[in-house]
Amino acid sequence: MYISKSFIPILKNNPSEAKIKSHQLMLRVGMIKQSSSGIYSWLPLGLKVMKKIEQIVRHEQDKIGAQEILMPTIQSSDIWKESGRYEDYGDEMLRIKDRQNREMLYGPTNEELVTDIFRTSVKSYKSLPQLLYHIQWKFRDEIRPRFGIMRCREFFMKDAYSFDISDEDAIFSYNKFFLSYLKTFKRLELVAIPMAADTGPIGGNLSHEFIILADTGESKIFTDKRIFDLEYDDTKLEKKSLENLRKKYEQFYSVTDEKFNEKEFEKKVDAPYRLKTKGIEVGHIFYFSDKYSKPMNAAVDLPGGKKDFVKMGSYGIGVSRLVGAIIEAKYDEKNEVMKWPISVAPYDISIIPLTNKNDNSSLDKANKIFLELKKNDIDAIIDDTDENISAKIKKMSLIGAPFQIIIGKNSDDDFLEFKEVGKEMKKINLLEIIKIIKKQKEKN
Amino acid sequence: MYISKSFIPILKNNPSEAKIKSHQLMLRVGMIKQSSSGIYSWLPLGLKVMKKIEQIVRHEQDKIGAQEILMPTIQSSDIWKESGRYEDYGDEMLRIKDRQNREMLYGPTNEELVTDIFRTSVKSYKSLPQLLYHIQWKFRDEIRPRFGIMRCREFFMKDAYSFDISDEDAIFSYNKFFLSYLKTFKRLELVAIPMAADTGPIGGNLSHEFIILADTGESKIFTDKRIFDLEYDDTKLEKKSLENLRKKYEQFYSVTDEKFNEKEFEKKVDAPYRLKTKGIEVGHIFYFSDKYSKPMNAAVDLPGGKKDFVKMGSYGIGVSRLVGAIIEAKYDEKNEVMKWPISVAPYDISIIPLTNKNDNSSLDKANKIFLELKKNDIDAIIDDTDENISAKIKKMSLIGAPFQIIIGKNSDDDFLEFKEVGKEMKKINLLEIIKIIKKQKEKN
Repeated sequence: MYISKSFIPILKNNPSEAKIKSHQLMLRVGMIKQSSSGIYSWLPLGLKVMKKIEQIVRHEQDKIGAQEILMPTIQSSDIWKESGRYEDYGDEMLRIKDRQNREMLYGPTNEELVTDIFRTSVKSYKSLPQLLYHIQWKFRDEIRPRFGIMRCREFFMKDAYSFDISDEDAIFSYNKFFLSYLKTFKRLELVAIPMAADTGPIGGNLSHEFIILADTGESKIFTDKRIFDLEYDDTKLEKKSLENLRKKYEQFYSVTDEKFNEKEFEKKVDAPYRLKTKGIEVGHIFYFSDKYSKPMNAAVDLPGGKKDFVKMGSYGIGVSRLVGAIIEAKYDEKNEVMKWPISVAPYDISIIPLTNKNDNSSLDKANKIFLELKKNDIDAIIDDTDENISAKIKKMSLIGAPFQIIIGKNSDDDFLEFKEVGKEMKKINLLEIIKIIKKQKEKN
Repeated sequence: MYISKSFIPILKNNPSEAKIKSHQLMLRVGMIKQSSSGIYSWLPLGLKVMKKIEQIVRHEQDKIGAQEILMPTIQSSDIWKESGRYEDYGDEMLRIKDRQNREMLYGPTNEELVTDIFRTSVKSYKSLPQLLYHIQWKFRDEIRPRFGIMRCREFFMKDAYSFDISDEDAIFSYNKFFLSYLKTFKRLELVAIPMAADTGPIGGNLSHEFIILADTGESKIFTDKRIFDLEYDDTKLEKKSLENLRKKYEQFYSVTDEKFNEKEFEKKVDAPYRLKTKGIEVGHIFYFSDKYSKPMNAAVDLPGGKKDFVKMGSYGIGVSRLVGAIIEAKYDEKNEVMKWPISVAPYDISIIPLTNKNDNSSLDKANKIFLELKKNDIDAIIDDTDENISAKIKKMSLIGAPFQIIIGKNSDDDFLEFKEVGKEMKKINLLEIIKIIKKQKEKN
């Protein structure tokens, strides 16, 4: 694919309206375009990244046995009246009247709708546990949308819901998502720390936010630095093993703003380990038992013949927000260099030929290399514009494909100028380049 | 995967509210669940089919060089006022006021929004043609939603838009989609006939609907039977070749209701070739030149230094509706047998063991076969419920995986009872079964 044919509207300078680096970069390289306040279109570059993130999130959900469904964006107010949240939710809920004057709304979250699906479908404890998830657009009518897709109104989210017969089983489900989230964020090369958190409008008494550190984050966090060194690799998808994982994390003080208590922090964390900083929330899990199943009458038959309300939890990951979160974590703003994790990069590699009106030889070489890479499932983009090489390198470093091949006048097939973004240039042949990229891709 | 663990809420009988067979089957086997009037949730079985259709649609768009973007569902009324359609669109448009009292709407189509994206991004003829598409939820507030997902309010649609500098180039783009649509529907094993159609609220003077024949369809069609025998296999993605393809189709009379003229029909079509029947619209393409680019001032620099408004077309495929359309075409309602094209089947094969409380041997065999199939990328489901074999076969024939393996007491590894749905039972070994299924899958 040539960059001249791609729909990648690149801006010369940082747009003045963007205050944080993810917003700047996403507008600068044409990943998104604002369509109205807090609402964005995703252009090809941004969509490619988001789709890859979505796929990783989906894969990690499937691995814990969650099943994918897809609920609609527009819901009836009836079920929200049943649960009692219709009035409570306030102005962030986008309320709509349809042509028949029925009260509808654009779903900000889906506890009610999934409970309704469950109660009409599942009647017996024998069908439990059920873990259901969907990846769908949500709308929250933020009073002051800001920071691009980080705090916008229409956003793309994975939300999952668990249904169990007992608190004990329900906590087992909760812990499965706890592990799954750690794995998901690691595959995105993010260090996300689970923190005890308030449950807010979702409700319940057990909740963790998953937060990545970032100066531009809107969450204040208070944590014991040792939590960053924890590993989960030996954890199995079994009750006991998952319990131990939670305990391992919970031995370290780690809370968000609302849960923070200075005295407790000082008592539990020795001075050298104390960390007060800011972060970005990328995931949030909740356990709320029968908060929705009881008012909505979602009960199943128990072994003895009695019935009981199912115990539920919910589990969210901000898929569109993760695009921004990765940029906040990886973008070197000063040098204007972005390097995407290869698992979500818009392209694996950029090919940068010297272009010359009277001489197509570099471009021809680029085309040949492109085809060879394609055969090996490596997704490349060729910068065929007539800018000079250093301008192209700069642009491609902003777009952020993790590797580059530069083809000048004297480029030799056996010694291509190859560069991993942020590292030194090397001269190696195409076969070696393919090997390096394939190895990187397999890691994920 | 066991059916007992899957979220597939099957009904014993046909639901009385469903009037056409796709609606019946989709509720019966738990592919969808209505959440409110004309709004549905997609359960795992339905979502799997829809995602596979989406992937085929996407693939065929990519093949003609269209680039994927993703526009939001909620739009500002401003751009619709610019184009002049805000008042015209009527009550089918879901109009919304946000918390700031701004007039918003849930996009029923995206000509305005994509024109806005184009005009701020593309300035020169050098970047043309541009073909952009997205696959996104739309909302049309039907006064009388009916027939399940066939005429619902919230639906999933692929819509593409082309931008060119001249009418001639624009028709070239139009013809690319014409071919692409024939190919897309063929991959879904549907015979979709392009018919001259009215342009309705989209506008323009050239338009084709793609329609599949079905008694339950809501479109009346009038056509020359010989159009069914046409082939497009020798068509190349080149101007002349595509023009010839259009001519080949247009030599036969083939129109929808609004364009129908009895005298013309009788004059152009000899009696034995006349066909008056009903069908389902699955795609619709439009050419409308500068209808939107002119009022919205989407112009590019031309070679000579002048500017001109771009010439546009739009191209829709109803992705969610196609799930229903395939059922209408393939479901044998009388015998209660559905056979999905393997390209979109929820599972490739179902494994049906005899289950017995005191004897796990059939289930064990089923598990072994499942793993062997999985190794070969064949997606199977095991019916581990304690129903009898004939009830299971019946249920699995409704779900519609195109192949079945039945494992009874005397099943022998070398001679498994294997059945292609709708055909005779055979006794063959697993290796042969794998070969048959792989061959079928490769065709697509």
